[in-house]
Amino acid sequence: MTYHLHYWPTIQGRGEFVRLALEEAGAAYVDMARGDEKDGGGEKALMADIGDHDHPSFAPPYLVDGDQVIGQTANILLYLGPKHGLAPRDEAGRLWVNQLQLTIADLVAEAHDVHHPVGMGLYYEDQKAEAARRAQEFRTARMKKYLGWYETVLEKAPAGGWLTGADLTYADLSLFQVVEGLRYAFPHAMKRLEPKLERVIAVRDAVAQRPNIAKYLESNRRLPFSTEGIFRHYPELDPA
Amino acid sequence: MTYHLHYWPTIQGRGEFVRLALEEAGAAYVDMARGDEKDGGGEKALMADIGDHDHPSFAPPYLVDGDQVIGQTANILLYLGPKHGLAPRDEAGRLWVNQLQLTIADLVAEAHDVHHPVGMGLYYEDQKAEAARRAQEFRTARMKKYLGWYETVLEKAPAGGWLTGADLTYADLSLFQVVEGLRYAFPHAMKRLEPKLERVIAVRDAVAQRPNIAKYLESNRRLPFSTEGIFRHYPELDPA
Repeated sequence: MTYHLHYWPTIQGRGEFVRLALEEAGAAYVDMARGDEKDGGGEKALMADIGDHDHPSFAPPYLVDGDQVIGQTANILLYLGPKHGLAPRDEAGRLWVNQLQLTIADLVAEAHDVHHPVGMGLYYEDQKAEAARRAQEFRTARMKKYLGWYETVLEKAPAGGWLTGADLTYADLSLFQVVEGLRYAFPHAMKRLEPKLERVIAVRDAVAQRPNIAKYLESNRRLPFSTEGIFRHYPELDPA
Repeated sequence: MTYHLHYWPTIQGRGEFVRLALEEAGAAYVDMARGDEKDGGGEKALMADIGDHDHPSFAPPYLVDGDQVIGQTANILLYLGPKHGLAPRDEAGRLWVNQLQLTIADLVAEAHDVHHPVGMGLYYEDQKAEAARRAQEFRTARMKKYLGWYETVLEKAPAGGWLTGADLTYADLSLFQVVEGLRYAFPHAMKRLEPKLERVIAVRDAVAQRPNIAKYLESNRRLPFSTEGIFRHYPELDPA
């Protein structure tokens, strides 16, 4: 069965966490909104489809698998994980990976709020002063707290180098994406933090070398980071 | 087995979603940080304990059940739900309830950011101007979009009045909590919205009448809303 992923067609955004899992798994999927309009692609079709289900989603991404429709990034991964060997089979293990993913979701929401602190309906240009204030705390306290927490998790994990030890899970793929996003958005801040994030960076590097991921990152399916997405590089928010 | 809930002792906050589930279930639990310091209570003990596990949590709440430690509100509820008849037994049903809960988590994060738009390490008093800007969008667009979505979910649900139809789930308890929180924080905005939220308010009312919940709300275990919590009432953020 081919999965249908529904997400904004021009950004990595939250959909990227799902794309990485599908790519690593080598799963067959169509990134619906990136298709031609005549095949149901485009943002208009996405917005028309999202509410048109018994289980509508509040926002993209959502995944359609046959007659099942699943929204919320962490929830989609909770569904895909055990199906594709990207999560432990036992309940305690699955819950722990879900917890790791939900904490990434919190980080991602904060990374978004840096450039949209007072209104997601407003442009960044309309909230630059507020963004500068918020960015300061994010750079100097929040990034360090979040990434440092993952470093601690890796330190406490059983041997193997992944977040849960010997086996890659979707949370490792998501940690890769967060490091990439933060490196793009806050290169100076990351340069300062990385010396203390040896294990986190090792996960990032190991994910980048997974054959399916490496192929994906080279492909045109991987959209570039940009100032339309969640992680945005505005030099004034990341002083040297 | 008695659950140990670890959360800030003086606020409802995110811990309240877990407390409501435990109370509805009639489960035995100890709200650890609310105990005497000599019994391991207090914020200091909470901060000492949180990292002291193989599976540390990034932030409270976390739940200890025997040797299992589970963090992230939605994840704790995912664990408790099927154990206590507060979630469907089938996978598709559990994922849908998780999706409903994760969307509440997003709403809760935005409700928090209204009074802390530029820095969670700063006081509200240090970001009043920014909060006023953010509150405007929250009141006029976001609250309506979120609560309107739950109204649509209820409209599409099978008969029964709960979010999934005939059976109460923890997502209904959480929706109750959100309505209570928003009524406290934004009474004027809620008065304007409620006429179009008939089904949401009916869930709120039905939850309040559950015998275990009614008893809990009357007890001193239910902490009051306050300007220390997530939902905060600042009259200047909710004009008539």
